[in-house]
Amino acid sequence: MSSHPAAPALQVSQWFNTETPLDLPALRGRVVALHAFQMLCPGCVLHGVPQAERIHRHFAGEGVVVVGLHTVFEHHEAMQPVSLQAFLHEFRVTHPVGVDAPLAGQRIPATMQAYEMQGTPTLILIDRAGRVRRQHFGQLDDLTVGAEVMRLLCEAR
Amino acid sequence: MSSHPAAPALQVSQWFNTETPLDLPALRGRVVALHAFQMLCPGCVLHGVPQAERIHRHFAGEGVVVVGLHTVFEHHEAMQPVSLQAFLHEFRVTHPVGVDAPLAGQRIPATMQAYEMQGTPTLILIDRAGRVRRQHFGQLDDLTVGAEVMRLLCEAR
Amino acid sequence: MSSHPAAPALQVSQWFNTETPLDLPALRGRVVALHAFQMLCPGCVLHGVPQAERIHRHFAGEGVVVVGLHTVFEHHEAMQPVSLQAFLHEFRVTHPVGVDAPLAGQRIPATMQAYEMQGTPTLILIDRAGRVRRQHFGQLDDLTVGAEVMRLLCEAR
Amino acid sequence: MSSHPAAPALQVSQWFNTETPLDLPALRGRVVALHAFQMLCPGCVLHGVPQAERIHRHFAGEGVVVVGLHTVFEHHEAMQPVSLQAFLHEFRVTHPVGVDAPLAGQRIPATMQAYEMQGTPTLILIDRAGRVRRQHFGQLDDLTVGAEVMRLLCEAR
Repeated sequence: MSSHPAAPALQVSQWFNTETPLDLPALRGRVVALHAFQMLCPGCVLHGVPQAERIHRHFAGEGVVVVGLHTVFEHHEAMQPVSLQAFLHEFRVTHPVGVDAPLAGQRIPATMQAYEMQGTPTLILIDRAGRVRRQHFGQLDDLTVGAEVMRLLCEAR
Repeated sequence: MSSHPAAPALQVSQWFNTETPLDLPALRGRVVALHAFQMLCPGCVLHGVPQAERIHRHFAGEGVVVVGLHTVFEHHEAMQPVSLQAFLHEFRVTHPVGVDAPLAGQRIPATMQAYEMQGTPTLILIDRAGRVRRQHFGQLDDLTVGAEVMRLLCEAR
Repeated sequence: MSSHPAAPALQVSQWFNTETPLDLPALRGRVVALHAFQMLCPGCVLHGVPQAERIHRHFAGEGVVVVGLHTVFEHHEAMQPVSLQAFLHEFRVTHPVGVDAPLAGQRIPATMQAYEMQGTPTLILIDRAGRVRRQHFGQLDDLTVGAEVMRLLCEAR
Repeated sequence: MSSHPAAPALQVSQWFNTETPLDLPALRGRVVALHAFQMLCPGCVLHGVPQAERIHRHFAGEGVVVVGLHTVFEHHEAMQPVSLQAFLHEFRVTHPVGVDAPLAGQRIPATMQAYEMQGTPTLILIDRAGRVRRQHFGQLDDLTVGAEVMRLLCEAR
């Protein structure tokens, strides 16, 4: 029995940097760092996105999966997938990134709603059992993130 | 007689952060810092654009005019004016920015061609007589930029 | 049986920021981050010392003990304890710092020799069993340090 | 007639990085950037001293003279000349630095008193006529410093 909620499903309309769509149930047994961002959010461009890429590069060998999620909830026309694709290329983002599925007539996309995120950037750490163990809106320093990811890695499968 | 070339005209298809289009002849007598960038060029986002805004804020009282120029020469679809507008809003760019006029069938826009720019970011300093005194592709440190702008300000009108 | 060497004893001539001398055997059961520095080494002042203080502040609640070690091996006259004390005060170092015991007629102090350190800054991570698990000369990024400290914290006592 | 005060004489007990003592009257006709610091003042180590060195390197060709002044007004025993010398070596300070002359029984050294400085770091800009044109306690950004130095350089001798 656990007080940690199961991580809601990813609802993604388009993927970049991965040949096959990512699905949380298939990642059971691994630690997942889910990073929600918008390509024109300064806190994301300057802090969140590069940090997610650092997590990806540092922990890839230990089986951590970093998933970027483009959660557009403002300036929708300005951040269409064609712009996101160029952004990922120019800023050398190599980890998988999904476009959070837009909902007709709604400002906030589907996955962002399911996780009740407050804005971007948001970092969500999901444990090997598929539970949300940390959800943070804003910036976290690297010492904290490194420690928290490792804490989840240490847990038995 | 001078060895410094006259600054080519600005060819702009759309302006932001100004109610009236900017025109170099009308700025004769003032020092102009022309800053060419692309909204998805990391060197521009991290260095060039914030530096241009610092020049704008620091030297506004001394009559320096900072003009941003969005010179899209790659990923054209990704950096349309609707995206630029959101970028300027989110990154709090307050100085005037023009969209360098696209030329049908050509990758490089009109003003970028006229100045023979090599890429982005490029900083161009134009003196009170309308001549290009400095054109630099890449990054210049603030100490250098502050000194060079002031050197032009010191020249008699 | 382990391939990890037991951490040599701390040989300290003077302590700051602690009322009682620190002794590794007494810290058995806890994770120790031993940080060797010189107060006039730029890599220490700009990177190593502030990182050690961040480790101290972040992990204090989890029982990690951060120990600074002032390993003077050059400019000995310039970095006497009276200068170190002012440095610690001015740079707001709050974790315990010991002066590595000088050896008569030798350039390199006692603990630095025992650990065979190559220079400063050096970060040494000691596990709950008192073994050296990591010894790094130079800079380590915070993501790595946060993860490595947590990995040792996760090990059973 | 001018409202700018004449720069008080430098009172220096020991010089580093110069074979001959520096004297303001002998620098008449040149622009002088006088930078007061303490080697254990974090704002000096992290900001003021590197900025002074940047001014030195950038403007050397234009005849600007950068003079560091070690104005010890606290922790006197900790910042003796032997420590300063090692600091200048390790932090690669190449511009001339003088030790502000201590006054018997007084906490604040002679030149610091004459200029009525409030603390460190302090940057003082002296024009070609030997007058104090700017005296700033704290940090100034590079854009401002570059512009102010150039403004003085532009003035006729």
